[in-house]
Amino acid sequence: MDFIKKPREIEDRSMELIAPHLAPYHLSEVETKIYSRIIHAAGDVEYAPLIHLHPQAVAAAQQALRAGASIYTDVEMVRTGINKRKLASFGGEVHCLIADPDVAAFAKASGITRSMAAMRRFGPALDGSIVAIGNAPTALYEVLRLVEEEGMRPACIVGIPVGFVGAADSKEQLRRNPFVPYITVEGTKGGSPIAAAVVNALMYDLDDTRF
Amino acid sequence: MDFIKKPREIEDRSMELIAPHLAPYHLSEVETKIYSRIIHAAGDVEYAPLIHLHPQAVAAAQQALRAGASIYTDVEMVRTGINKRKLASFGGEVHCLIADPDVAAFAKASGITRSMAAMRRFGPALDGSIVAIGNAPTALYEVLRLVEEEGMRPACIVGIPVGFVGAADSKEQLRRNPFVPYITVEGTKGGSPIAAAVVNALMYDLDDTRF
Repeated sequence: MDFIKKPREIEDRSMELIAPHLAPYHLSEVETKIYSRIIHAAGDVEYAPLIHLHPQAVAAAQQALRAGASIYTDVEMVRTGINKRKLASFGGEVHCLIADPDVAAFAKASGITRSMAAMRRFGPALDGSIVAIGNAPTALYEVLRLVEEEGMRPACIVGIPVGFVGAADSKEQLRRNPFVPYITVEGTKGGSPIAAAVVNALMYDLDDTRF
Repeated sequence: MDFIKKPREIEDRSMELIAPHLAPYHLSEVETKIYSRIIHAAGDVEYAPLIHLHPQAVAAAQQALRAGASIYTDVEMVRTGINKRKLASFGGEVHCLIADPDVAAFAKASGITRSMAAMRRFGPALDGSIVAIGNAPTALYEVLRLVEEEGMRPACIVGIPVGFVGAADSKEQLRRNPFVPYITVEGTKGGSPIAAAVVNALMYDLDDTRF
């Protein structure tokens, strides 16, 4: 069996194969990295026309990362997918409360999802942070409520929940919010590797020493 | 904001919305669960025609799970996505060596990927197990080498690596192997949530007490 076995070569070749699919979008270098890593994570070039970057999102997110901002996420798979060693090199860490017993008890008592209860529990810690949602539309709805009703101001929301119940609508609401810059994907597609890929692309653009 | 907040309702509604897309495939009940959870995890109904189940795969995997077989995976995101409490109720656990320092050192010295080195390290433990690959084509190539050259016999290979370098080809080779039943998705699409979704669907079909 003859195939490429070196990690750097695999990634470089993958980015080369993705590049022609991005030609129509006239992207900056960092935007190209974000689009490429999303497509790389999904194995799906049809993501390209669905990606939406708020004009201030990259600058706001990278400024926060450089200053050591933490990342708040809805599910453990996003935490697992984020390069935590790289994040720690800037001073940040990833927080996820989905498995917290108090959050689970509160969710059950309130008849809401655990990821929704988890975002509520983060509360004011969300100010200045990066929120990364890769699974639960309910978590994104709750973050938008915290922004709109309680004045929380994350630096950037990477909002890429997945599925057929609420994902498309919650991402549409994210794009209509006038308060916080966002990175999102329209429609039903998304998921934890996609949200983690965006966060990693933002970090690798600041400091690409991984191999 | 008015939206469904109860986990069971969200999942049931999602499965209802997916069902019409599966009508052309004349699936059994357990096959329907596998297809539905894949599509649910990706938010992408276009997975349906790409899924391939070897005729013995479901029976072999479920027999192994019931007997307490362990799951061997290429990356931590697959481990994170698998319902480990449910797996433990059958007696199994999930193993992943991607973060093992010895595996990393061996991979670096050999010029191969860590996930490839990790699969090789599992060795004879793969016999009778379920292999779940959600990221690295190199890991799937290595498992197929272990099967073909070293006689390892997992009960089932859930082989769903993702991307543009080797994913489509390694999955094609998986489908051509005459030794081990498989569950896979043709082409470039795939990923950790998809592989984990298949494992969870197999388990939930045996015992669906989650909510």
